[in-house]
Amino acid sequence: MTEIKVIEINENIFEGMEAEADKLRNELAGKNVFMLNVMSSPGSGKTTALGAVINLLKKDYEIGVMDVDIRTCIDAKRVAEKTGVRTLQINNGGLCHIDADMTRRAVRDFGVEGLDILILENIGNLVCPAEFDTGAHKNMMILSVPEGDDKPLKYPLMFSVCDLVLISKIDTLPAFDFDMEKAVGHIKKLNPSAEIIPVSARTGEGMEEFADWIKKQAKDYIRG
Amino acid sequence: MTEIKVIEINENIFEGMEAEADKLRNELAGKNVFMLNVMSSPGSGKTTALGAVINLLKKDYEIGVMDVDIRTCIDAKRVAEKTGVRTLQINNGGLCHIDADMTRRAVRDFGVEGLDILILENIGNLVCPAEFDTGAHKNMMILSVPEGDDKPLKYPLMFSVCDLVLISKIDTLPAFDFDMEKAVGHIKKLNPSAEIIPVSARTGEGMEEFADWIKKQAKDYIRG
Repeated sequence: MTEIKVIEINENIFEGMEAEADKLRNELAGKNVFMLNVMSSPGSGKTTALGAVINLLKKDYEIGVMDVDIRTCIDAKRVAEKTGVRTLQINNGGLCHIDADMTRRAVRDFGVEGLDILILENIGNLVCPAEFDTGAHKNMMILSVPEGDDKPLKYPLMFSVCDLVLISKIDTLPAFDFDMEKAVGHIKKLNPSAEIIPVSARTGEGMEEFADWIKKQAKDYIRG
Repeated sequence: MTEIKVIEINENIFEGMEAEADKLRNELAGKNVFMLNVMSSPGSGKTTALGAVINLLKKDYEIGVMDVDIRTCIDAKRVAEKTGVRTLQINNGGLCHIDADMTRRAVRDFGVEGLDILILENIGNLVCPAEFDTGAHKNMMILSVPEGDDKPLKYPLMFSVCDLVLISKIDTLPAFDFDMEKAVGHIKKLNPSAEIIPVSARTGEGMEEFADWIKKQAKDYIRG
């Protein structure tokens, strides 16, 4: 009985939030800012992969990063140190997600004037973030090799809402029983139009392709 | 404004659930069943580590496993195939947690008469499961080496509520920048009384120690 109550409440929030999310999307488009929402498990390598791709993009684009965490500002510091771009840490007070209203308030605090690309590094979680439209123009997630090739089956919503799935830490494939064909098959079955790019931030493999994907998505939003 | 509403609702549920959780704990103790709640990120190796420790324990104890997932019965099948013990898959309809009320209903459906040890393999998530008392007698979590040594800083509640932290996949230490001393230091600072056991299900390292920890916790509940 109790958990049904929670579901209803989340649905209500989600409905209300769709309008909020559209509003933020339009507001950002009006300012020629492309926003990308990046999701994954804890420890999938989000911060590392984002640091690497930002370093490939930053000579041609103005980039800002907002990092969401329950506590600490480790990620925002790490991205700032690694890339030199402007970052904001959002501590969300223990929630397992960030919604469009929270994102909009963070965007106002951060100030996006002059940015081309705004990256939202969502909280590490394969469940809740997928349920909340943040107002981003595109959604992506990172599945790391150590997590296993069965994760799309177990967290289907996350894999369904993403435009891009990075399969990360592929340099560690020899250490794990991860079947790349199976993983890709599971993702394509849930989400036939998803793009899938295997990457390793350590060796650099796939990072140029990841950067090209972001450029392609961003080009409709930013000033030529 | 909207996310504050969610917080309040969760808190109310949690307060009501404490009484529910105590009731389930007492009910199980009255039946001489020890219940262990096992939490972690997705892909930390919960199912594999549990399969290995159950095989060490099953000749001396009657064991049952309840696996919680949003969808699929992969984990329950895997544990059953690997160990031969009785398993139940709980699909929680998309929630990121399981609470005492849901657990109690699952316990009734499963039937625990004759069991010594009941293992609840919680949903893969470092946020929500830590907020809900399931009614288990002890809580443990698994942090895998690929997730990184900073996870206790980023998910402090999870590390605070656990009696045992397994550090898993230690056979992959050479492939990752994981500082064991740092990880242990972070955990001890949050939770000085937590026990910490490094394990590898692949090499078997630490698994006997893990089995001994379960035996020690269970002995006050089960019939000599």
